[in-house]
Amino acid sequence: MNYKDIIEKVFHDTKGLTNKGKIATYIPELANVNPTMFGVHMTNLTGEGYGMGNNLVKFSIQSIAKVFSLTLAYRILGEEIWKRVDVEPSGTKFDSLLLLEINNGIPRNPFINSGAIVICDILVSHLGNARKEFLAFVRDLSNLPNLSYSDKIADSEKANGYRNVALCNFIKSLGNIKNDPTEVLDFYFDMCSLEMNCEQLSYAFTYLANGGLKISDSSEVITKPQSKRINALMLTCGFYDESGEFAFKVGLPGKSGVGGGIVALYPHSYTIAVWSPPLNPNGNSFLGMKFLEEFTTHSDFTIF
Amino acid sequence: MNYKDIIEKVFHDTKGLTNKGKIATYIPELANVNPTMFGVHMTNLTGEGYGMGNNLVKFSIQSIAKVFSLTLAYRILGEEIWKRVDVEPSGTKFDSLLLLEINNGIPRNPFINSGAIVICDILVSHLGNARKEFLAFVRDLSNLPNLSYSDKIADSEKANGYRNVALCNFIKSLGNIKNDPTEVLDFYFDMCSLEMNCEQLSYAFTYLANGGLKISDSSEVITKPQSKRINALMLTCGFYDESGEFAFKVGLPGKSGVGGGIVALYPHSYTIAVWSPPLNPNGNSFLGMKFLEEFTTHSDFTIF
Amino acid sequence: MNYKDIIEKVFHDTKGLTNKGKIATYIPELANVNPTMFGVHMTNLTGEGYGMGNNLVKFSIQSIAKVFSLTLAYRILGEEIWKRVDVEPSGTKFDSLLLLEINNGIPRNPFINSGAIVICDILVSHLGNARKEFLAFVRDLSNLPNLSYSDKIADSEKANGYRNVALCNFIKSLGNIKNDPTEVLDFYFDMCSLEMNCEQLSYAFTYLANGGLKISDSSEVITKPQSKRINALMLTCGFYDESGEFAFKVGLPGKSGVGGGIVALYPHSYTIAVWSPPLNPNGNSFLGMKFLEEFTTHSDFTIF
Amino acid sequence: MNYKDIIEKVFHDTKGLTNKGKIATYIPELANVNPTMFGVHMTNLTGEGYGMGNNLVKFSIQSIAKVFSLTLAYRILGEEIWKRVDVEPSGTKFDSLLLLEINNGIPRNPFINSGAIVICDILVSHLGNARKEFLAFVRDLSNLPNLSYSDKIADSEKANGYRNVALCNFIKSLGNIKNDPTEVLDFYFDMCSLEMNCEQLSYAFTYLANGGLKISDSSEVITKPQSKRINALMLTCGFYDESGEFAFKVGLPGKSGVGGGIVALYPHSYTIAVWSPPLNPNGNSFLGMKFLEEFTTHSDFTIF
Repeated sequence: MNYKDIIEKVFHDTKGLTNKGKIATYIPELANVNPTMFGVHMTNLTGEGYGMGNNLVKFSIQSIAKVFSLTLAYRILGEEIWKRVDVEPSGTKFDSLLLLEINNGIPRNPFINSGAIVICDILVSHLGNARKEFLAFVRDLSNLPNLSYSDKIADSEKANGYRNVALCNFIKSLGNIKNDPTEVLDFYFDMCSLEMNCEQLSYAFTYLANGGLKISDSSEVITKPQSKRINALMLTCGFYDESGEFAFKVGLPGKSGVGGGIVALYPHSYTIAVWSPPLNPNGNSFLGMKFLEEFTTHSDFTIF
Repeated sequence: MNYKDIIEKVFHDTKGLTNKGKIATYIPELANVNPTMFGVHMTNLTGEGYGMGNNLVKFSIQSIAKVFSLTLAYRILGEEIWKRVDVEPSGTKFDSLLLLEINNGIPRNPFINSGAIVICDILVSHLGNARKEFLAFVRDLSNLPNLSYSDKIADSEKANGYRNVALCNFIKSLGNIKNDPTEVLDFYFDMCSLEMNCEQLSYAFTYLANGGLKISDSSEVITKPQSKRINALMLTCGFYDESGEFAFKVGLPGKSGVGGGIVALYPHSYTIAVWSPPLNPNGNSFLGMKFLEEFTTHSDFTIF
Repeated sequence: MNYKDIIEKVFHDTKGLTNKGKIATYIPELANVNPTMFGVHMTNLTGEGYGMGNNLVKFSIQSIAKVFSLTLAYRILGEEIWKRVDVEPSGTKFDSLLLLEINNGIPRNPFINSGAIVICDILVSHLGNARKEFLAFVRDLSNLPNLSYSDKIADSEKANGYRNVALCNFIKSLGNIKNDPTEVLDFYFDMCSLEMNCEQLSYAFTYLANGGLKISDSSEVITKPQSKRINALMLTCGFYDESGEFAFKVGLPGKSGVGGGIVALYPHSYTIAVWSPPLNPNGNSFLGMKFLEEFTTHSDFTIF
Repeated sequence: MNYKDIIEKVFHDTKGLTNKGKIATYIPELANVNPTMFGVHMTNLTGEGYGMGNNLVKFSIQSIAKVFSLTLAYRILGEEIWKRVDVEPSGTKFDSLLLLEINNGIPRNPFINSGAIVICDILVSHLGNARKEFLAFVRDLSNLPNLSYSDKIADSEKANGYRNVALCNFIKSLGNIKNDPTEVLDFYFDMCSLEMNCEQLSYAFTYLANGGLKISDSSEVITKPQSKRINALMLTCGFYDESGEFAFKVGLPGKSGVGGGIVALYPHSYTIAVWSPPLNPNGNSFLGMKFLEEFTTHSDFTIF
């Protein structure tokens, strides 16, 4: 079977499953999404792709944006960045605050919320206007000159993101936030409010399957070793408490968001984005996880 | 450069580094090893290999044996095994007992001590004579009919392994050890006392680079999906608190032991074993980690 | 020896000790205090007292005010209050966030910061103007119609209290803060900024040695059982990580503040306030602890 | 009302309550006790007493014996003892292993299991025959020359006490157990197997209400300051996770055991023992707690 056939078969099989997931409700705006949406899109390194279902409907990419902010900060700071955030899996949500305290405010990795907030702090420090320059960066990566933040989503998070306010102030008290917590959080919530569809998202991630180079013009986003290291981080830390499970069952570097999106990639080969809003108990798209598990089982496309 | 040239160059470069590691002393017998030993051996899927330094000197493989015991238990129980042990990275040593209590005695993964002890309990339950049958299994895997346990090492651990006695009894109190703790621990200490050299170790791991099949006769040790999953587990959990770092810097599935050995593999291609007794603060071979980092940087042989 | 002689002797003995404490610096304004200040004042239930040293110099009572806010909230809510905060010692600072998460936002007791913040939330909910009415309450208790908040101290804390901002928002995210975190914290910082001298402080606490009645006019502040229960809480939880040590060495209910003040009381008999700014590693006045330990050893005035 | 009337009234009131407690079952032998047993006995400092119900039926005193072992070890080592065990409340069962690891094997206090095991280790180190000499000590304290260990109870615990085996070996691995763990645990289980009735138990504790002196002949068991300090420890740490609650509701130093016994004391005045086997969720006698709460409410006999 070629990859189109595999995608079609697995898409239909997965669609037929009972969706046991639940839509995220802690951000009121996210709760308004249509739970039956289900889309998938694959893009290879020549830029060709293939999609199915609601692959052209935009959704809130949420934590998936953390890969873009890490990329930009890594490009600016180089290996110095790891003095501010570690590269280890986080154990459980449960002990995350305990680990922060033990580790003097150094988050376990850049993909848990605490780590992503520290990355935002770095960008606020190094960019004249983080909100604007980060958007320009992602617009360029994704070839989407009109991409923009969703103020509705960002405002909804700002009004309800007590846990993130707590995290940012806690890290500030431990010395690892350099700017005003409110400014850092504003940028953090903006960053998470980006909206893309599956086609756009899979395209935007191609630089990580292509050794750090944009596939459109081979310009360097980040170096090849940096690109590999971000992939390694996605594999070990990209899915919260379920990162081991994803490596185990899917076997690809990837990143999920509470909007129900997941993007994964096979180095030197392709990227794939899948979207279905209802989440499993670990906060990852229920159908998205099932789809990718079946997809890699049938396609033999895994790094292991 | 071909792989022999790379190994030679990296071996010499690494040998020249100041070894900041320290020999493990908590097992008295392990402290007697010569700290200047340094060997490396690579084996490809045709069984050909190339080694340097003390690659033919035997050492205590310790926790590396946990991959063999997991393989045997997985072969016996299939996916049922994951009811007894999880597949997630463990966070830190620090919170391991806390996590065990929260998770009702289900260890985070089969490579931390608690998980490996549960695997031993499974083998004790399902084998008539776990000590004997496990040895036969590894002898077959490694083509070493005379391979044997080191009673000196095992006895030294039995006399000093208070932490493991604590772990096993703690899990027993939480209901996830079915046999007598003393019997389980005796087998656990035996299992960890196996001795191999780098050549033998890299050969013994070839089934995991070969889709679960022995390279000598293509007989199935475990299924291909099982083989991938063990590789995924090695990548996310094979190096204690430093698993993320290893994925990040080396980018290969692997497993380390406190005897100073590390084995890593590149699926469909090769396995490599390296040995140098002094350990870094995370309990992994100081020079071994450096060697593999340089080796994958120069060779471009990483899964990312 | 009568109590005046004991106070004099112990005051001089303690004054002669090398003060190994350090002034609190996390609130910049507190760091400006004169570290050599040392005062003590005892008040009995007829209102007579005896003081020495800098007993008439005002200082920031800080966490000691938590006893007043608890008293007011307890008077308003009665036993219902314990649905919002527990009555158990907190273990260590170290695990306080972990315990909050496990306990769904119910702080371990009303004297750790998280608990005192929840008490402030209760007062904000039940009073028209918490800031004003709480001040009126303490003015009445202490017979000090001109007592006021220190805006300088409160502002200094507001500008630097990241840890408390984190705590309040964390509890909000767990559902146990009902008002806007900023409003609750403003009141919390005001409450902690009250300034009294040793004479005033020991007088203000007499109701707790007098079964809940003001000694001036026998009017009821709280009921007798409530008064006993606050005393029990001070004994088990009044000194952060050192509560057991204080019960063990001093043997009286008491409460300390990072301003270097400590107040303690012997039911049916007397109250005593001591002040010396440098703190021991547990955040309690170094000399204050020494003074009270010696005082109860010589006077035989302990509840045990 | 005099104390006899109060005891009678409260005994009858409490007996009428629905007993929501559950018998401890983790020690099989303890599960065989008659759950309707309910006895109480008070003893004053002249040795006179008054009892009701099953006050003359023996039961397993379990953890209450930890007060005797602490007394003996404190008498031997003096204040040196606190280098091996701390005097702070433990927080929760939940974090006890975490705290042990953070505190390098120093248990939070001598009344949690880890602390009592360290006390046993001290006695094994300092006594020729800990089992024999400890028994002689308690026989003397309690004026019961025929008091003996229950081998049936001790054996039942030895066969099932995996959690305690884990604790002892864990502390051994952290360096705070000096003897062989098996020897220490054997003594620990023997110690907990002592059987007394309420009359005997209340009599045996009179030295702690009497400044450390036996009431029969005024001989010194421990010094007066030591006696006060043990009382303080019972108040802050005597009831596991419910110590604060007991201080709060009962307001007396006391100690409970999983056999359903509780002993409490009012310094300079009396001791009281109560027994009812079913336990509340915190492991303390359900009716015993209710009885003491009512008793101190009616009698005004509390230290606060």
